[in-house]
Amino acid sequence: MSTFVVIGGDAAGMSAASKAKRDTPDLDVVVFEKGAWVSYGACGLPYYIKGEIQTLEDLVSVTPEQFREERDIDLRTGHEVVDIDPDDRTVTARGDGEELVQPYDSLLIATGAAAVVPDIEGVDREGAYTLGSMTDGKELREFVARAREEGPAEQPDSGPACQQLENCNGPVGVVGGGYIGIEMAEALAANDFEVHLFQRSDRVLKAFAPETSAAVADHLESQSVSLYLGSEVQALDGDDGVEAIVTGDGERVPVEMALLGAGVRPRTDLAAAAGIELGPTGAIATDAYRETNIDDVYAAGDCAEAEHVVTGEPTYVPLALTANRHGRAIGQTVAGTPTKGGGVAGTAAVKAFEMEAARTGLSHDDAAAAGFEPVTETIEAKSRAGYYPGGGTVTVTLTADSETGRLLGGTLHSEYGEGAVHRSHGLVGAVTEGVTLSELSNYDFAYAPPFNTTWDPILTAAKVLDGTL
Amino acid sequence: MSTFVVIGGDAAGMSAASKAKRDTPDLDVVVFEKGAWVSYGACGLPYYIKGEIQTLEDLVSVTPEQFREERDIDLRTGHEVVDIDPDDRTVTARGDGEELVQPYDSLLIATGAAAVVPDIEGVDREGAYTLGSMTDGKELREFVARAREEGPAEQPDSGPACQQLENCNGPVGVVGGGYIGIEMAEALAANDFEVHLFQRSDRVLKAFAPETSAAVADHLESQSVSLYLGSEVQALDGDDGVEAIVTGDGERVPVEMALLGAGVRPRTDLAAAAGIELGPTGAIATDAYRETNIDDVYAAGDCAEAEHVVTGEPTYVPLALTANRHGRAIGQTVAGTPTKGGGVAGTAAVKAFEMEAARTGLSHDDAAAAGFEPVTETIEAKSRAGYYPGGGTVTVTLTADSETGRLLGGTLHSEYGEGAVHRSHGLVGAVTEGVTLSELSNYDFAYAPPFNTTWDPILTAAKVLDGTL
Repeated sequence: MSTFVVIGGDAAGMSAASKAKRDTPDLDVVVFEKGAWVSYGACGLPYYIKGEIQTLEDLVSVTPEQFREERDIDLRTGHEVVDIDPDDRTVTARGDGEELVQPYDSLLIATGAAAVVPDIEGVDREGAYTLGSMTDGKELREFVARAREEGPAEQPDSGPACQQLENCNGPVGVVGGGYIGIEMAEALAANDFEVHLFQRSDRVLKAFAPETSAAVADHLESQSVSLYLGSEVQALDGDDGVEAIVTGDGERVPVEMALLGAGVRPRTDLAAAAGIELGPTGAIATDAYRETNIDDVYAAGDCAEAEHVVTGEPTYVPLALTANRHGRAIGQTVAGTPTKGGGVAGTAAVKAFEMEAARTGLSHDDAAAAGFEPVTETIEAKSRAGYYPGGGTVTVTLTADSETGRLLGGTLHSEYGEGAVHRSHGLVGAVTEGVTLSELSNYDFAYAPPFNTTWDPILTAAKVLDGTL
Repeated sequence: MSTFVVIGGDAAGMSAASKAKRDTPDLDVVVFEKGAWVSYGACGLPYYIKGEIQTLEDLVSVTPEQFREERDIDLRTGHEVVDIDPDDRTVTARGDGEELVQPYDSLLIATGAAAVVPDIEGVDREGAYTLGSMTDGKELREFVARAREEGPAEQPDSGPACQQLENCNGPVGVVGGGYIGIEMAEALAANDFEVHLFQRSDRVLKAFAPETSAAVADHLESQSVSLYLGSEVQALDGDDGVEAIVTGDGERVPVEMALLGAGVRPRTDLAAAAGIELGPTGAIATDAYRETNIDDVYAAGDCAEAEHVVTGEPTYVPLALTANRHGRAIGQTVAGTPTKGGGVAGTAAVKAFEMEAARTGLSHDDAAAAGFEPVTETIEAKSRAGYYPGGGTVTVTLTADSETGRLLGGTLHSEYGEGAVHRSHGLVGAVTEGVTLSELSNYDFAYAPPFNTTWDPILTAAKVLDGTL
């Protein structure tokens, strides 16, 4: 009987374990997870902190007991793998006060990513948080609960206080204007904190089109978020806990906590120590089957890189769907049906207060760097027929290769509920299949007045950009 | 100087005229429109009748004056073309009390479609309506206004009355369960009519998957629409005006009006008389450039057929986007840049009260008829992350060819606002490009908890159907 060992019990790991076991019930499947939580929806943490989700358990799609009892997976939570020996085909794990050596026939490394703690003075002060794990989520929710209990912030002379909001539970800082930063700004503002958001770059959501960054920035400010763009945070200052954020310009913004949303880095130490190759992105290198340079050792999820559907080059986009998809493909491969999980298009979506945005493929700059001659246009269009009640505006930015007309990527944004994100599904296939603007503009997309204009905004954008070629 | 003549001033005609003139300003562009309205959004008529749009003018995207003055198009409303002479390259038009002969170098026939008046006794009674033109829309709105003014319906012994609704403005009948029938049921119910909807087939929305038909039917009933499925209407009965609908079963349902939503047929008489070939669907046959069998004579919009993107065979799907797209392509061709407008995928969308639905590609039965060996599966999935507040259910039916795994078509439905229609954009490209289920299930679609589950419902459906191959 063959043994499949998985290191890491979240999306990639549990998808692989479940699929392998389902397809080959007599396979032994052993999962080591160093924490207590498995198969959790970390993407839901901002909404848990916001208060829209009541317990951390709500984020768990399948419990450890279900994996063990219903899926017959030997899941060992609280067990950290400390060594991989590819020659002996064993891993060494520690847990329950002992160390054990587990042989494997196939191995999946799904160690995930860790929140980056930026190199800033004072990041170890009390009141400095990151959001990478369920524990982080719990601590942030507790911070919110404490502040709400204490009620509106004290007056300025006795410590940090709100300058702009009435009945404010205190000023807080968010360092980083990516998804996590923006989702946390929403979560904190909804709990009556005065949010100060610091972004090193001159725009938020750097992976999105600049027009979308600008629109989201305007919207954040309309929601009373104070934005500090092009602002390098130098220190989290305070006597004991965090009391202020100090920027490179010397500005000192009083805050009662700082959320550090500086992105994530792949957890690769264990793999690297075992001689498993990392790729150019710093994450674990894999082939199209997500196999590493060592036979029968796979890697997937936030610790691994994967090929981009446009360039074919390795890219690191640590998001949930890729982890699930590649985990599932590995499970199928291990169960005897070699399966490629598909590349990544760099697709991402975010809700920002009452806005939504999505992006896919290559940005203009990415495309130039990849050797294309990119052209880019942005259009605005009504989200429903002009005469239909309600509705708003969908803004679409498309980038194409001027030589071939091939669509390379795009960004959309709209009011929340007006369909920027769901519409982006229409771009993903076009980017993946190498469709030209002319072909895309002839797509027979659905139309009815309550949903769009006769030419959906995507089609209009394709026509406009095609017209510039 | 060359002359481009267009017969018909709605979507296809005005798109072609505008594009040709824009691309070649010294082209003479003459448009004959027999009515008074041009470039109107007939798709918006149900919402005008419902009362959500206040004037017919709101449905007009560009006025006759704008076409004449801003776009320099010689638009002659109130002019009916009565003859085409392809040998002389002239058309004969009547209007303003005279008859004129207009020479052309290129000609576009965009005569549209007419509402089918079904072969039922009493369809010429007062109180029997169709919905094909702006005039029809006006008359229906006037009917609604009169009934609302008169207020709640009289008692049964003095004529038709409501059986189920309190404060009802009268019982009304809708004959036909397609888009128009369903949109009109919504429009009438919103105005406190008791709606009785008769459908000859055993399900509404026959072009959609049966699961969607069933869900929409349930929803219509939950909105107090009385459904008569598998019910052939035999007569509109009454002393003077319409007083009752009589079905083949002999049931007699009292109504104060009957809306006949029995579909449309292409207006082809003018073309056929000139020796222009009709295709197997009965609409005007065209090649990929929308040119008819006669050189420099084009046809587009609701009077013409076009090739299906999956089968390559002629198909008749008279919808607005195709009319616009093909009109625009013809305009570009006439202006000197031969342009194919792309085939049709049979995509359609409809809002039904608080539901939305879309379909694209081949249905299971269409696929079998076209020589594929279709397999079809339906899945239900949450429209947002399970733990995210709000949200509903997206139901996805996919059909694929069992031999090749190629996606052939699909239907989606959800609560209105939960994204079935915008998500369908993701299927259109896949159907058009001949993508397999395995490829589709690896698409890197956008994911975030406020918008979908990690695997969007489309991906789940693709995985499930792929698993049956």
